[in-house]
Amino acid sequence: MKKKKYLITGSAGFVSKYFLHYLNSLKKHSSVLGLDMDLPAYKKNELNYLDVVFKRVNLLDDKKVAKIIDDLRPDYILHLASCSSVAYSWQYPNVSFQNNTNIFLNIVEAVRNCGVKTRILSVGSSEEYGNVHMNKAPITEECRLLPISPYAVARVAQEMLSRVYAESFGLDIIMTRSFNHIGPGQKDAFVVSSLVKQIVKSKQEHKSRVIIKAGDISIVRDFLDVRDVVRAYYLLLINGVKGETYNVCGGRGYSISDLIDRISKIIGLPITVEQDPKLIRPNDNKIIVGSNEKLKKELGWAQEIEINDTLRDMIDYWETAIGPEFSRVERS
Amino acid sequence: MKKKKYLITGSAGFVSKYFLHYLNSLKKHSSVLGLDMDLPAYKKNELNYLDVVFKRVNLLDDKKVAKIIDDLRPDYILHLASCSSVAYSWQYPNVSFQNNTNIFLNIVEAVRNCGVKTRILSVGSSEEYGNVHMNKAPITEECRLLPISPYAVARVAQEMLSRVYAESFGLDIIMTRSFNHIGPGQKDAFVVSSLVKQIVKSKQEHKSRVIIKAGDISIVRDFLDVRDVVRAYYLLLINGVKGETYNVCGGRGYSISDLIDRISKIIGLPITVEQDPKLIRPNDNKIIVGSNEKLKKELGWAQEIEINDTLRDMIDYWETAIGPEFSRVERS
Repeated sequence: MKKKKYLITGSAGFVSKYFLHYLNSLKKHSSVLGLDMDLPAYKKNELNYLDVVFKRVNLLDDKKVAKIIDDLRPDYILHLASCSSVAYSWQYPNVSFQNNTNIFLNIVEAVRNCGVKTRILSVGSSEEYGNVHMNKAPITEECRLLPISPYAVARVAQEMLSRVYAESFGLDIIMTRSFNHIGPGQKDAFVVSSLVKQIVKSKQEHKSRVIIKAGDISIVRDFLDVRDVVRAYYLLLINGVKGETYNVCGGRGYSISDLIDRISKIIGLPITVEQDPKLIRPNDNKIIVGSNEKLKKELGWAQEIEINDTLRDMIDYWETAIGPEFSRVERS
Repeated sequence: MKKKKYLITGSAGFVSKYFLHYLNSLKKHSSVLGLDMDLPAYKKNELNYLDVVFKRVNLLDDKKVAKIIDDLRPDYILHLASCSSVAYSWQYPNVSFQNNTNIFLNIVEAVRNCGVKTRILSVGSSEEYGNVHMNKAPITEECRLLPISPYAVARVAQEMLSRVYAESFGLDIIMTRSFNHIGPGQKDAFVVSSLVKQIVKSKQEHKSRVIIKAGDISIVRDFLDVRDVVRAYYLLLINGVKGETYNVCGGRGYSISDLIDRISKIIGLPITVEQDPKLIRPNDNKIIVGSNEKLKKELGWAQEIEINDTLRDMIDYWETAIGPEFSRVERS
């Protein structure tokens, strides 16, 4: 059998790394071209079943994107790349919107124009739902989209364009609305990773009492382990139904304060939270919890990693990542 | 009282012309800056109550747009400019999408950044509704948006961005979903104007039987006279509710074949229709009829021009517009 060819955008990111490790764990020889503004930090030789090439590319360059896709003629495209900061989209709404929709259009136009038979997974966001009334939780895919940030509008446009390309141009596209994902190695720009890092740091400094800064800790989100997320992406690429949209989520909500309690118990330290007004977003939803029934029923996906295991792995990650630095500080 | 300042984008177009004539008919001295890629064909001296300046501008030039808005500091912006051809959007989805959303973003970003207090009317399209099930007619503003062309997705994005700018940046924006409009002077690229032109031409050539070419004449659309449309736009600019979306439509559907029958009766000639497959769109809605209850109830708007009067005026227009040419042909 011929090796399958994967094109992955956003290949320097957190999700791409876990996707490649999952793909490698399946032990099917495949080739992968990863595109990103940056090269990833990890080593390719961990991925012994994959032929991986990472390339620095600006996906806003339509001609370059068209040439790459025409040359590679991939079997699968996993489109993870995005200008994904909601905060940035509040500051530079036009840049955020244009970058997100333009890189997506460059990819689907390249596929349409070169006529290659490719399955595309267009990764969207739970932010698309926007101002969902609380009694709508868990949110199913049928729920109305009321995006409340420029970033979220771009994601809705990407999904609606995906449907147009699937229905009218016959492109083989599957769409997701992915809820919050967490896991070891996630940058501390994301709330849970930032909290774990702060707590681990305090513990390593032998503080008797941990004080951390956070925004609104009452907000409830549907946090799913990135390793469960990438299994869903793989299943969707292989068996998803063309033109359909799938929630990717755990189906259960956790408030930030609940997560802090769990981390406190695992780490064995009492934690005090100080609210930082700078960390509160101008127009944020109180509760976002998704329904994963469609993903379970149609794809046979099931969540495998429980929240406490994810938090434990994140604590381990930060203990290793910031360990030596603080050892140095203590020694000096 | 200080003169009100209007900024109109798409000022060389059909709708702008009627808007300015309506504004002039109100006899309130106002100043108007019209922006478009082209200059309009009509004379400004018909507009004796208005100080009108038309300027050629490419609205994709963000710096130029920002400077114009900062210099003018308009009271009202009527944003009519668009890349409005659905057919073009099927050929060049990325260009159509980007142009539409980018010119809109350039305008709202300019307003946001210079902090001017302006009311903006963001004109959208009934195409936003897309694949509405027939039993949903007439369509209210609450109806789900399922756009089926790249053009329509751009319009949905524009409306959703409008809501974000209104709710989170405090911009004073009102949105429309405008259904098909017709009237004397409309280009023959639009179906009803094209039909009237073909029929008038046949009559002037003294044909005993009129044969015209058309696409699918069973499709039903909600056609409203452009003069009723621009009164709605004026009322919305003056009294519309910030952040709200309004259907602008007649509330009644006419099939193309019904309109052909009406024109046939007015003009007194039997008409035979030949179907032209080239005029059938790849993925077109059968019926699009809107509800105008919100516009009537909240703004006190009412339709004033009945369909037969509109068709009569369109016949008169084409009789004058193509008359001399055919007189010449007959003389030669």
